[in-house]
Amino acid sequence: MVLFPDRRSSDEENLGVDWVIRYQFDGADTAAAIDEFRSLIRDLDEAGLRTQVRHGNGASLLVFVNAPRERLGHEVFKSRVKDWLDGISDIRPVGDSHTVIDGDTEAEELRSIHHLVTGRKDDGGAEVTANRGRWKNVKACFPLHSPNANRGLFRRWRRLRILESDDLDELRALFGERVALYFAFGQYYGFFLAGAAVFATLSWMYYGSYSIGFSVISCLWCIIFVEYWKVQQTDLAIRWGSRGVCEVKGDRAHSTWEKEAQGHQTVQRTKEIYQVEKQLLRQLPQFAVAILASFFIGSLVLVTFTVELLALEVYKGPFKAFIDFLPTISLALSLPRISSILSKAAARLTDYENHRTEAQYELARAQKTFLSRFITYFLPLLLTAFVCVPFGDRIGSSLDALHFTWFSDRIPRHIDSRRLQQQVISFVLVTVMLQFRERNFLPHGAQVSFMKYLHYLPDRPTDILHPYRRSNSSSLLLIDHPEESGFLSRVRDESEATVRDVQDNLLEICVQFGYLALFGAVWPLVPLVFLFLHWTGFRSELFKTIMERQRPAPLRTDTIGPCLSILEFIAWLGCLSTAAIVHLYRRNVRQVELWSLLLTIFVAEQLYYVARYVVRTALQKIGSETIHREKARRDTIQRRYLETFSEEAAELCRVYKPRVRFNEVTDVVIETNRLDPTAASSQHVRPSEDETEDGNETEVPHKICRTDTDLLRDSDKSTKFWSWHHTAQETTDAGIKLIEAISVASRLGRSAPESGQITPKKAD
Amino acid sequence: MVLFPDRRSSDEENLGVDWVIRYQFDGADTAAAIDEFRSLIRDLDEAGLRTQVRHGNGASLLVFVNAPRERLGHEVFKSRVKDWLDGISDIRPVGDSHTVIDGDTEAEELRSIHHLVTGRKDDGGAEVTANRGRWKNVKACFPLHSPNANRGLFRRWRRLRILESDDLDELRALFGERVALYFAFGQYYGFFLAGAAVFATLSWMYYGSYSIGFSVISCLWCIIFVEYWKVQQTDLAIRWGSRGVCEVKGDRAHSTWEKEAQGHQTVQRTKEIYQVEKQLLRQLPQFAVAILASFFIGSLVLVTFTVELLALEVYKGPFKAFIDFLPTISLALSLPRISSILSKAAARLTDYENHRTEAQYELARAQKTFLSRFITYFLPLLLTAFVCVPFGDRIGSSLDALHFTWFSDRIPRHIDSRRLQQQVISFVLVTVMLQFRERNFLPHGAQVSFMKYLHYLPDRPTDILHPYRRSNSSSLLLIDHPEESGFLSRVRDESEATVRDVQDNLLEICVQFGYLALFGAVWPLVPLVFLFLHWTGFRSELFKTIMERQRPAPLRTDTIGPCLSILEFIAWLGCLSTAAIVHLYRRNVRQVELWSLLLTIFVAEQLYYVARYVVRTALQKIGSETIHREKARRDTIQRRYLETFSEEAAELCRVYKPRVRFNEVTDVVIETNRLDPTAASSQHVRPSEDETEDGNETEVPHKICRTDTDLLRDSDKSTKFWSWHHTAQETTDAGIKLIEAISVASRLGRSAPESGQITPKKAD
Repeated sequence: MVLFPDRRSSDEENLGVDWVIRYQFDGADTAAAIDEFRSLIRDLDEAGLRTQVRHGNGASLLVFVNAPRERLGHEVFKSRVKDWLDGISDIRPVGDSHTVIDGDTEAEELRSIHHLVTGRKDDGGAEVTANRGRWKNVKACFPLHSPNANRGLFRRWRRLRILESDDLDELRALFGERVALYFAFGQYYGFFLAGAAVFATLSWMYYGSYSIGFSVISCLWCIIFVEYWKVQQTDLAIRWGSRGVCEVKGDRAHSTWEKEAQGHQTVQRTKEIYQVEKQLLRQLPQFAVAILASFFIGSLVLVTFTVELLALEVYKGPFKAFIDFLPTISLALSLPRISSILSKAAARLTDYENHRTEAQYELARAQKTFLSRFITYFLPLLLTAFVCVPFGDRIGSSLDALHFTWFSDRIPRHIDSRRLQQQVISFVLVTVMLQFRERNFLPHGAQVSFMKYLHYLPDRPTDILHPYRRSNSSSLLLIDHPEESGFLSRVRDESEATVRDVQDNLLEICVQFGYLALFGAVWPLVPLVFLFLHWTGFRSELFKTIMERQRPAPLRTDTIGPCLSILEFIAWLGCLSTAAIVHLYRRNVRQVELWSLLLTIFVAEQLYYVARYVVRTALQKIGSETIHREKARRDTIQRRYLETFSEEAAELCRVYKPRVRFNEVTDVVIETNRLDPTAASSQHVRPSEDETEDGNETEVPHKICRTDTDLLRDSDKSTKFWSWHHTAQETTDAGIKLIEAISVASRLGRSAPESGQITPKKAD
Repeated sequence: MVLFPDRRSSDEENLGVDWVIRYQFDGADTAAAIDEFRSLIRDLDEAGLRTQVRHGNGASLLVFVNAPRERLGHEVFKSRVKDWLDGISDIRPVGDSHTVIDGDTEAEELRSIHHLVTGRKDDGGAEVTANRGRWKNVKACFPLHSPNANRGLFRRWRRLRILESDDLDELRALFGERVALYFAFGQYYGFFLAGAAVFATLSWMYYGSYSIGFSVISCLWCIIFVEYWKVQQTDLAIRWGSRGVCEVKGDRAHSTWEKEAQGHQTVQRTKEIYQVEKQLLRQLPQFAVAILASFFIGSLVLVTFTVELLALEVYKGPFKAFIDFLPTISLALSLPRISSILSKAAARLTDYENHRTEAQYELARAQKTFLSRFITYFLPLLLTAFVCVPFGDRIGSSLDALHFTWFSDRIPRHIDSRRLQQQVISFVLVTVMLQFRERNFLPHGAQVSFMKYLHYLPDRPTDILHPYRRSNSSSLLLIDHPEESGFLSRVRDESEATVRDVQDNLLEICVQFGYLALFGAVWPLVPLVFLFLHWTGFRSELFKTIMERQRPAPLRTDTIGPCLSILEFIAWLGCLSTAAIVHLYRRNVRQVELWSLLLTIFVAEQLYYVARYVVRTALQKIGSETIHREKARRDTIQRRYLETFSEEAAELCRVYKPRVRFNEVTDVVIETNRLDPTAASSQHVRPSEDETEDGNETEVPHKICRTDTDLLRDSDKSTKFWSWHHTAQETTDAGIKLIEAISVASRLGRSAPESGQITPKKAD
């Protein structure tokens, strides 16, 4: 199951590597590749980052990035100052343009490095982002996993049933607030599902489908789920000091500017307003796409329905039970394919819309992706529920009108209302099976077999990977140094590993929640099925994050973002849909009068708003413990400050700051800080990684080796690794040699694998 | 028209009086009054305020409050520090517990004094509030009008058609953000009405009532009105630096605590949670009251309807046209009375609910008051529109069932659908007439006649006011010093003047907006009528604020508060109601099918949400100029600070702070501040009041005389005024003597007006 296997002996540490960039080039066009590579290294160098280069898998180079202690420490300080300026933190960090501080967590330091590597140039970054704009050939841009920390987490989670807040803090310290918040939400969703499953199963056993009582409670449960999560996420954001982060909108790199900002206010404003109009225009295509897709899916559903109608009545041959279900099942099976096409279209459209900030981009993308999912998964069911079954006989009549007399004689005049239930069951089951397979077998299976292929000679792992090794001249360049080979091999694996944004997982949960809220009344076992899927998937999701996937950039957030509004929308639509379905299908569909149906829906909508208002107000009044504590903390600070007006009073609120319990060291540091201010800038006393290894199993070191002395102390290997190329020029030269060697070797590999000596010519 | 007439010769200045408290006592129970008065002065003295006491009208004392310069200056500084701590201001004010600064505007200084007088004791206030809790006998607690500033405003406004932002800034500098924001909203509402009136009148001339096109545009107009106001108020809040003020919730004085806060967190929290449950329980009675009131009004409407029905058909005598309308008009005329009863009940209920913060209290009160207005004004019309007219014949049949055979023979089987229009017209006209009368005649008329009565001997104004003057012994105490008499007479007038909170005016606008949004389609001339009412009332409202009413405490706000959600609610209900009314009454009411009506309402509701979302998103994207400037300002500050990390960089943002243009002095001060930091605490160079008087007419001095030297310079009168009682003990003694003298005199006045000498006995 573990993609990055135990290579404890060889590559325990990351050799001081903070960030890795995989640059892939076209073997045929060496000159262009060399130019691009040169500007890549120059950009990184200008951002004050140290670089090393090695070769990657295939025609690619791995650029290793290290942020010197002064650069990183100041970046961390600057990000804290920005937090203060943006009102995220209360405390103004004292310092000047030379201040260097340590991050509280590994994630905080990596976030600063992320900012240095991917940030805009006028903010001091290198503007290198993967797969976008100018850097289309940068295929991956990621921090390395921390093997020791991951091993600690793995050991702990094996015995773990429920993620406590300490576990979430650990996740946050390693992977950032975004990932940690996703897992908090996932677990919360699990509890919600468990409650819903228990209640729904009981209700199903006693009252069957379309129970009014169950529907009301289910709608309420959905509202409470959404509203209580808001309290929860505020709670976590306060705990992690990230409250208000999402309101600060950083400009998105690679959005095209109409005019370059001149620092002059008027110009900047003109540009912004101009962009707004253009952007609103650019949002029009999405509607066209959505309408087209809806029509396509709609007609697909109608065709399926007609075919099934005929199959039901007309076909009397063998395997009838199977044939009856065939159209629905093939529809359900074809939908994921359509959904993925639509999702790609959504991504394209979002790129085209050219959003100014990262948050807007993400919002637009999530909205479109969800819309595509909605059209593929929910539209067919809604059509079945509210068009096909109630108006089924009219569809028959319209076939009549087309003079398909052979058909129309045989088409039943009475459509069975159980059709909806059958379709919901098949859709839910197919979705569950697909998501289950995708989560538990597909990517892992594909990767394992791919990796197996790459490493199929276990004792000589680099042999197959680099077939050009056999050519003598390039061989010197393309053979890993024995001391590094294990580490490099791991980095190569990580650079090819899947990247999965938590947003995708959140959208999956949204789809599940949609089935449950919209069609829970049809088949109350929906939550039970999803509960099974969730609890099998959620734990493996945890393990995959540390084992199989590329480490995500540790971004901050204080909300699950666009998914929250999607969940709200689903809860709203769920109320309407549940009310309508129960009203329609509780008795005979055909006896329902239109006005009573409409009245039910209308009343349900108003009840939804009232219930939401009541739940929201009540939850806000009650609040959570953290929110109360935060308020008390603020009051105490205010009072103390107003009494003394001193810097110390302002500093004192640190005492109340919720601490990261991930590593006891951090606590010690804060305490020391308070007692002896001079200790603030001194080096932390922390157990060396070896001590941790031997000692307490659950205590995971979470600091990257930072200072040069650290590098030296940790191992000679780091020093050796970073001494290959001392300047950016050396790295550039080495990279150019590698590019040439690889392209020559691959050309040789293709044409004449056993050719003789080739002298790589210098490019410049 | 002017309540406080030109007394330029005698009482130009306020003699250094910052705040006035009118203490009324029961002439019969002198001992209790003395006790209470003693503790009043003690509380004020403990808050560090200087006091003087004079007698008021009738059995009341006027306590004059002055905040010494150090006390006030530090309070202003502390309120700025609090703003910084709460994130309202970016700049941390530099200073310590001895820092003394001047407020930027008169309103800011008065706000600090307001805080000193009414604030909670543990915040350093005296906790003296009018008509509440312990201080039931304090009948008024207000700042004095500034005659010079008011005269300047009056001169300017006479020529004024539209309030520019400068005028709003002036209003804010004198009366605080709350009042200024109300006038900004009032003017904005006027523009909205003008647009609606033009369009509606045109539509009425060409298409008559129940036009679909007009209804759609009217609903959209309402949505835009609400959403654009949000942008406007954010704009103004940024301009005035009050953004975020409403999120800071000060505890409300006189809310009853379950347990006293011990400063210990756990205790405090327990108490809070306990209060929440109790509070939720205490909110139940309002529902009972609302339901009862609805039933009462409902049955009233039904009775009126039946009577009118009978009158229409049965009565054939003289004045038939008048008799036909009589029931509706008498209903409309009886409603204000019911409404005022319900409003009082709402206030009682809100007090009973015991809210913790001022904001919650105001919200709850506004909600209840609006609910009471809704029940009285809109429920009858809604009942007529959706029950009486469509089901009118069934009402006849039910009378049948009761065997009123004499009636039922004569009851028409067909109810005229013009009834709704007639009723809307009479309701709107009656409301307009009542509001017009109330605004332009009633309070002013009542007050003028009251004041005329008080001053009916023009040469001896205090003669009638203080009949006990004739008793010899007390006479020495109860005669005003000739130098002060004009001033005291003005203060007495102000202390009796009406207090009108802007919230009431806002609620009036909400009711108007309700008629317009809910029933605009029935009679499109509604906006025209309200436009007339608004433009006549709005200007006189401006003048009344400075001429007739007690000066309000200059509170801050960044929103029109609960009224905003009420307006949103009305816009929503308006969409539904308009859709339903147009659908019902466009053709024959009786031919409308229920399902089509319900579908219309349902679709209208969804369209409302979509339209609101679109309008909101578009307006947010476009923003306002101030909002863009604020963003640019923040960016500039951030960049500058990140470049230098200096205190000066932090200070520099003052340059971008929108300035109060009310008085040029303030601008000068800020510039000086920046160029020479040492000048910050020095005395401002400002024109003396006399210079202003002679010079620029529109330039209004807006500083209270602050320092003791100021007092001396301004006039000897101030010094004399404040030298009567030097210590709190002296004030107490003087007050006690006055109480005794007044009660003795009034007793004598009642029993034997011409009695001889009475020696007031000392109480302690």
